[in-house]
Amino acid sequence: MSNEAKLYQHTIDLLQERGVSTTDIGELVMFLQSKFIPTLTIEEATKNVEIVLKKREVQNAVMTGIALDKAAEKHQLESPLQDIIEVDEGLYGVDEVLAFSIVNVYGSIGFTNYGYIDRVKPGILAKLNAHEPGIIHTFLDDIVGAIAAAAASRLAHSHPELEDDIY
Amino acid sequence: MSNEAKLYQHTIDLLQERGVSTTDIGELVMFLQSKFIPTLTIEEATKNVEIVLKKREVQNAVMTGIALDKAAEKHQLESPLQDIIEVDEGLYGVDEVLAFSIVNVYGSIGFTNYGYIDRVKPGILAKLNAHEPGIIHTFLDDIVGAIAAAAASRLAHSHPELEDDIY
Amino acid sequence: MSNEAKLYQHTIDLLQERGVSTTDIGELVMFLQSKFIPTLTIEEATKNVEIVLKKREVQNAVMTGIALDKAAEKHQLESPLQDIIEVDEGLYGVDEVLAFSIVNVYGSIGFTNYGYIDRVKPGILAKLNAHEPGIIHTFLDDIVGAIAAAAASRLAHSHPELEDDIY
Amino acid sequence: MSNEAKLYQHTIDLLQERGVSTTDIGELVMFLQSKFIPTLTIEEATKNVEIVLKKREVQNAVMTGIALDKAAEKHQLESPLQDIIEVDEGLYGVDEVLAFSIVNVYGSIGFTNYGYIDRVKPGILAKLNAHEPGIIHTFLDDIVGAIAAAAASRLAHSHPELEDDIY
Repeated sequence: MSNEAKLYQHTIDLLQERGVSTTDIGELVMFLQSKFIPTLTIEEATKNVEIVLKKREVQNAVMTGIALDKAAEKHQLESPLQDIIEVDEGLYGVDEVLAFSIVNVYGSIGFTNYGYIDRVKPGILAKLNAHEPGIIHTFLDDIVGAIAAAAASRLAHSHPELEDDIY
Repeated sequence: MSNEAKLYQHTIDLLQERGVSTTDIGELVMFLQSKFIPTLTIEEATKNVEIVLKKREVQNAVMTGIALDKAAEKHQLESPLQDIIEVDEGLYGVDEVLAFSIVNVYGSIGFTNYGYIDRVKPGILAKLNAHEPGIIHTFLDDIVGAIAAAAASRLAHSHPELEDDIY
Repeated sequence: MSNEAKLYQHTIDLLQERGVSTTDIGELVMFLQSKFIPTLTIEEATKNVEIVLKKREVQNAVMTGIALDKAAEKHQLESPLQDIIEVDEGLYGVDEVLAFSIVNVYGSIGFTNYGYIDRVKPGILAKLNAHEPGIIHTFLDDIVGAIAAAAASRLAHSHPELEDDIY
Repeated sequence: MSNEAKLYQHTIDLLQERGVSTTDIGELVMFLQSKFIPTLTIEEATKNVEIVLKKREVQNAVMTGIALDKAAEKHQLESPLQDIIEVDEGLYGVDEVLAFSIVNVYGSIGFTNYGYIDRVKPGILAKLNAHEPGIIHTFLDDIVGAIAAAAASRLAHSHPELEDDIY
């Protein structure tokens, strides 16, 4: 397997290990886009998620965010960072910063979708936010929302029938 | 008056000329934050909007965005940019880019609020999106949401009682 | 011609009209990358510039930035924005904001190249900065540097021999 | 001591523990700005660094970046992230993403300074890049450059004599 194929598979495996399948993220894409693309299927939504996960920038954010979540679960971080990540402290913001490096990959039109889904928290995002004892998803939560927002942007770019005719 | 005071007043005047008062934006801040800060008044919300409007980065975005909206109203732009801005085309994205330079001023925690308000479109944002003939608010719409999101971030940073005790 | 092909051609034409060829930008890419990729030719560099110019996000930034430069040349903007863009005022920053929406398209590794080239100003960037009377390139200057930085990032992503073997 | 004062002191201590003093960063600011502000002293430069370090966004990035550098030194990360951070792999980019959350705090005008200093690597940046065995500064390197760039932006905003008279 090429380095690229290995990194892609590793990213999928990491998400799976943390309880998130590509179909879970595909369902978030459906939540965001089925209103605008009535013919959208969960298969096409999930396929767009997979294409997003092939981007190196996205893989970097997934690996780094999950590494920080896991380090916090193992109490390997120093205070106060350990506590900040443990309680998902509101002024922290590095989780959003990582999430935005994902959303950016398909341009600024994904920003709105990211913010919306992060506040409404449908589907898998509600589960990731359950804050069960011992389980920390401070980064994963935002990263999953960002992957869905990026996939939704990609769909908008690839469905030209959604665009007004500008010529 | 100092250059700084003149730029601030000019920014307020420009918004007013385009139909947006600082209180209108204060009401968006209430929409975003009154759930988290039950004691928040429209006066405190609006005061935070005014502080945001004193930032040079924000003034630059307001002046530039409104200049583009007005140029489109006067048909001064070349095709296809004229048409793209006129119809608020979905793949354009420069309006969001400008909006994000505003949100960024108080850090990444404002991203979520911006995305949420931009999709739900409460209060003045609904009016700006009415797409009345001859009136173009492609940039202003996003800019006003971004100012509200930045003011909401500033409030979160200045209400330490909202934070978990991390020490 | 498809909408996509038209937008691409329009972007090339706009740059040409303002005195910038894709080869000029290709030379900036050579300046940035020939040290790291000794076999890089001006043809490959320029081809990467053309691929960058096919991205909608990049086309949006080019069209909008040049529209603002031209509006300033025609004195169509209101004071003080007219003067700020005319003198390329140091605290303005919207030109950099637009430039960053271009750099972002190939991820964060382009940031460094953009900052470096913007300060050293080789080749066509020196010409664009000559500030000849009546000619305004406040936006174009930053946009051209950003396109070169994005093309350099793309090259780095596509030359796996440059990467350390991480497995 | 207030939470805020503790976080500030913790940030200074962390940098010191990793071999970086506020004066080291002040010298980078001198490198960037003394050409434009001939009267600039190392004291004023360092004072601006300290003000930047009081921003919560900056403290978050410092704590998180150093935590990742240290985790890599202790071999606590999983492969391939462990190796990517260990060798400061060129396509990684999360270090730049964190750095940009720092630069952003004083607006887009800091982007250029960050890119320039990151490529030229004067003073303390050369030391941090020495890649001595067992010592990992993949994140710290970019973070220190970003703090200097943000402090340089702050100086530009606070020296109005540097600005053209736009009214």
